[in-house]
Amino acid sequence: MSNVLIVYAHPEPKSLNGSLKDFAVETLQAAGHAVKVSDLYGMKWKAVVDAEDFPSRKDPDRLIVNRESNHAFSSKTLTPDVVAEQEKLRWADAVIFQFPLWWFSMPAIMKGWVDRVYSRGFAYGLGETGISIRYGEGGLKGRRSMISITVGGKDAHYSDRGINGSFDDLLFHIQHGMLFYPGMDVVEPFVVYESVRLTDEQYKTYQEAFKARLAGLFDETPYAYRAQRGGDYDANLRLRPGLEDAATGTNIHKARA
Amino acid sequence: MSNVLIVYAHPEPKSLNGSLKDFAVETLQAAGHAVKVSDLYGMKWKAVVDAEDFPSRKDPDRLIVNRESNHAFSSKTLTPDVVAEQEKLRWADAVIFQFPLWWFSMPAIMKGWVDRVYSRGFAYGLGETGISIRYGEGGLKGRRSMISITVGGKDAHYSDRGINGSFDDLLFHIQHGMLFYPGMDVVEPFVVYESVRLTDEQYKTYQEAFKARLAGLFDETPYAYRAQRGGDYDANLRLRPGLEDAATGTNIHKARA
Repeated sequence: MSNVLIVYAHPEPKSLNGSLKDFAVETLQAAGHAVKVSDLYGMKWKAVVDAEDFPSRKDPDRLIVNRESNHAFSSKTLTPDVVAEQEKLRWADAVIFQFPLWWFSMPAIMKGWVDRVYSRGFAYGLGETGISIRYGEGGLKGRRSMISITVGGKDAHYSDRGINGSFDDLLFHIQHGMLFYPGMDVVEPFVVYESVRLTDEQYKTYQEAFKARLAGLFDETPYAYRAQRGGDYDANLRLRPGLEDAATGTNIHKARA
Repeated sequence: MSNVLIVYAHPEPKSLNGSLKDFAVETLQAAGHAVKVSDLYGMKWKAVVDAEDFPSRKDPDRLIVNRESNHAFSSKTLTPDVVAEQEKLRWADAVIFQFPLWWFSMPAIMKGWVDRVYSRGFAYGLGETGISIRYGEGGLKGRRSMISITVGGKDAHYSDRGINGSFDDLLFHIQHGMLFYPGMDVVEPFVVYESVRLTDEQYKTYQEAFKARLAGLFDETPYAYRAQRGGDYDANLRLRPGLEDAATGTNIHKARA
């Protein structure tokens, strides 16, 4: 049995996202897992990185965010709300991000969770060699992660030739840039389409599919994103010639199965 | 002479982003343009969409964001801070977004500007046909937009084979999803690399390059992103076969020059 953190962002508890979050909690607990929820709206999570995040500054005259982030982390002067989230992340074996896709990314409150909780020295900026330990390594290594989102559009709009772009591409900035970067494995996103028009019957079908995904959370094969120090990138961190095989775009950063 | 809105997000006025913002204001004004700045940190911009955004609710029992957004816009009950930003957007001929790339996207405060200012009926959700007017059309049509960002990493890390992904892909959720979607044209991003290690000399070189980009802001050829109703997409909004030519990934959504 494992520990699962659900980071959840929706302003309305009665929303589809709220229901999916509740369903995930029940399903995971019924399977014997321990579950914690960071309900960002419910917690009135402070979304914005600013000087208040660093009450004991290294340089009071000029706020250089990544330096103060590193200083606050190493001197244990981060604010209590950030420390509490970091402790949840340390505790977790898996992290699920439940949110509505707004403008093809996270709601601001969840982006602000990443911006504030991922302190330098905690999630990234590890290692004393001058080269950041990241992409497959980092403070969150050993955990797996899954995005669970709702979208207004149809499946076809997000397909390989769909006008919105594919999720492999659209979610790359999150899945590769925010989840794999600090070391987490990433499994396929769970997506509910046409969220505004969902019938009760369709919702039940999605619940069954979500239940199956949650049951397999620790068994699924994660994306084969390439580790920074795995030998696939050269000294300039460019993918070595030929390794992409037939892949293009963001998918060159996945190794072949 | 034209009207330019700069949407700027950095918590430190003395930052590189602050300097680039000031430089853009001076340069554009010297060229005769009228300039307005939305300094999101300076304005203490409210980053989070919540019930307070909709003081006169259509449904007080359940917050369905896009419905309340549409209702508040059409009944003129949006909050004054959102109305003020919408008026700036109406006024603008061009919009520049100046920000540090945090976790491969905007700082939360700027994402919250998009989430809150892009009301349904203002930026999107136009048209009475049941099909949204978007991608090349929409409330912001007739304007052009440019992202101006600073990144800690090197050019090579963001190149075609770079580990972080290319900007064509990384910024697609912003450039295609937040700028072109509501109708704005998009020109190439302006990027300052290795922002943390920048020497005075390097900064001057970047200033010259930025000056040239600002001088050409209204003359540059924008990305040839394909309009939703331009004939390139089928009824399921999938790109018609063959149109991508040799392009792959997100670049299939750009027509060939």
